[in-house]
Amino acid sequence: MPFRMTEMVGCEFPLFAFSHCRDVVAAVSRAGGFGVMGAVRFTPEQLETELRWIDDHIDGKPYGIDVLIPEVQAVERQVTADEVVSMIPSQYRDFTRQILRECGLAEDDATPFGGSQAPNTSLGQELLEVALNHPVKLMANALGTAPPMMIEAGKKHGVPVAALVGAKEHAMKQIEAGVDVIVAQGGEGGGHCGEVATVVLIPEVLQAIEQAGADIPVLAAGGIMNGRQMAGMMAMGAAGVWCGSVWLATTEAETHEVFREKMVAATSRDTIRSKHRTGKYSRQLRTGWHAMWEEAGLPALPMPLMMLLSEPALRAIDKAAVNGNPKAQELCSYFVGQGVGLVREVTSAGQVVQDFKEGFAAGYETLSEAIA
Amino acid sequence: MPFRMTEMVGCEFPLFAFSHCRDVVAAVSRAGGFGVMGAVRFTPEQLETELRWIDDHIDGKPYGIDVLIPEVQAVERQVTADEVVSMIPSQYRDFTRQILRECGLAEDDATPFGGSQAPNTSLGQELLEVALNHPVKLMANALGTAPPMMIEAGKKHGVPVAALVGAKEHAMKQIEAGVDVIVAQGGEGGGHCGEVATVVLIPEVLQAIEQAGADIPVLAAGGIMNGRQMAGMMAMGAAGVWCGSVWLATTEAETHEVFREKMVAATSRDTIRSKHRTGKYSRQLRTGWHAMWEEAGLPALPMPLMMLLSEPALRAIDKAAVNGNPKAQELCSYFVGQGVGLVREVTSAGQVVQDFKEGFAAGYETLSEAIA
Repeated sequence: MPFRMTEMVGCEFPLFAFSHCRDVVAAVSRAGGFGVMGAVRFTPEQLETELRWIDDHIDGKPYGIDVLIPEVQAVERQVTADEVVSMIPSQYRDFTRQILRECGLAEDDATPFGGSQAPNTSLGQELLEVALNHPVKLMANALGTAPPMMIEAGKKHGVPVAALVGAKEHAMKQIEAGVDVIVAQGGEGGGHCGEVATVVLIPEVLQAIEQAGADIPVLAAGGIMNGRQMAGMMAMGAAGVWCGSVWLATTEAETHEVFREKMVAATSRDTIRSKHRTGKYSRQLRTGWHAMWEEAGLPALPMPLMMLLSEPALRAIDKAAVNGNPKAQELCSYFVGQGVGLVREVTSAGQVVQDFKEGFAAGYETLSEAIA
Repeated sequence: MPFRMTEMVGCEFPLFAFSHCRDVVAAVSRAGGFGVMGAVRFTPEQLETELRWIDDHIDGKPYGIDVLIPEVQAVERQVTADEVVSMIPSQYRDFTRQILRECGLAEDDATPFGGSQAPNTSLGQELLEVALNHPVKLMANALGTAPPMMIEAGKKHGVPVAALVGAKEHAMKQIEAGVDVIVAQGGEGGGHCGEVATVVLIPEVLQAIEQAGADIPVLAAGGIMNGRQMAGMMAMGAAGVWCGSVWLATTEAETHEVFREKMVAATSRDTIRSKHRTGKYSRQLRTGWHAMWEEAGLPALPMPLMMLLSEPALRAIDKAAVNGNPKAQELCSYFVGQGVGLVREVTSAGQVVQDFKEGFAAGYETLSEAIA
């Protein structure tokens, strides 16, 4: 077991798969990688169900959990979900209704504008508590500095804590906070991201760790879709890779068929780094959704308001897209990185892990031949 | 001599150094890399002088030339330099004068707004003719598809033709045009660049070449500042790397001391992809120059107009910066990629090549240990 991450979390091959889908998590871990369950969309009860399913289907292999405990929100902790929803300006509600109407959908299809799901800081903690009753081997914080309660929970339960960063400065804060693993994600990656590209971010974060006199493994994220890239990142000093987009084009994923077809058709230039989904910059497949907001000249609302508005609408659009609605098919989108340009087919998550292993070996082989 | 580029251009180590400075070109080639002279700023007479100097100082090692023969310009071929200059709107001239005044500089310092240097398509050809009277081993076209005359000249003189691309679609055009080498530069790179990041662009271009049934080596560019990154790119399938920014922080470079200090201080987040220098998107160190244009609300003019306006002004600003003018020190900028965040000191170009070799070996070593 030569890999550093093998020692730390027990996986055979340091390929970390972030997914909102339990099937992907289990399939990746069974194949030798390390599945990480994105928990942010679940209630504590739902998460309990998902993790129990994973425990039953993962053949004893290790897996992790990803929660989101933001440092700063536009919304304070004590307000109710309805109060949050009432903070969305009527102009924005009206425009969202207009988008739905153009898809032939009624507002009812996206009620109550997500009101019941207003995220709060305590939700993240509750999800974490659920997770810690399962044999998780890693807990990650998706955005912002890992809070002290997370670091303490990690120590108490002997579970390493990982944190995602998009810039050297953020990595330095995480080192101070005491995280065990840094996931450095370049701006080409899907979901929330910064502007620094992976190929620069990885050595910059490694430099910062070295200068801080710390010894923390770094997982490379952002644009990584195959094993040759993984070999490349590890030659640069990464301890492994953390991938999200590549799993979206697998048969197990939560994505629907229309979106998967869009992934296969897309090039690397078909993504956009936009605030018009969550309220913070996140990279997504560029579709009519972004064009409509830009044409309307409505700047994105802060998180979580933008998300409360967009997520229910986009879910209704997804549903209509699957049912053959052409306008909805044009608008449907999802978080995905520039690596979408490398997707050529939809395959199984286990096969993706196998392809990564072969690509990794091929990358090493190429270097060996060059050196020989 | 195991490297593919060694066979093609005769260098020991496939590290390609793009530089406007003959000293860097000669030093890199002498150290085992491959210097490429950026010729675009020279007259044919000046270029002749530079190449003669290189021939005298390169110890018989190979080097190349980079010219710019744009496909499309805002200016037609037959107009005079003065006519081109007259196309610059007075509002833009006035604002440039205002910037100079704020630096305590007179307009005379930047006369005649570059009028005598209006680029034209024939200049690129003339520069190429000069170069072909020297023992150049590679000729590169910096922007757009390599024109037929360049491909023909390459065949006639037995000199491989390279072309820079920032997207898969551009690579496909270059393959059709018949180039021998593709330099795929990610959007994190300095100078003219696209939006696709290096880590995605390299496999995407390699895929496109494979799908076209072609067999063309790809050099990876954009963000590459050290040998570990080089090993990473080659594990991904690149035949070598093409670097620009890293040479700007060398003692031999054309950059001045104030800018080099800014490079050492900068992080990867201190660059900007802006049209406010050449008229096309190019990545530069973000300074007060960009802030002033943005605040003025003046969108960039097309190439070459923006360049004719900005270059003489920025040269005057550079001169003043070196002479201790604080406002000029704030405004001075240059083309540089996000990799600037990895620059920790100014060193010699030969030392940079040596460091690359060591980093390359270390990257390979890391992979070997992981595999073992």
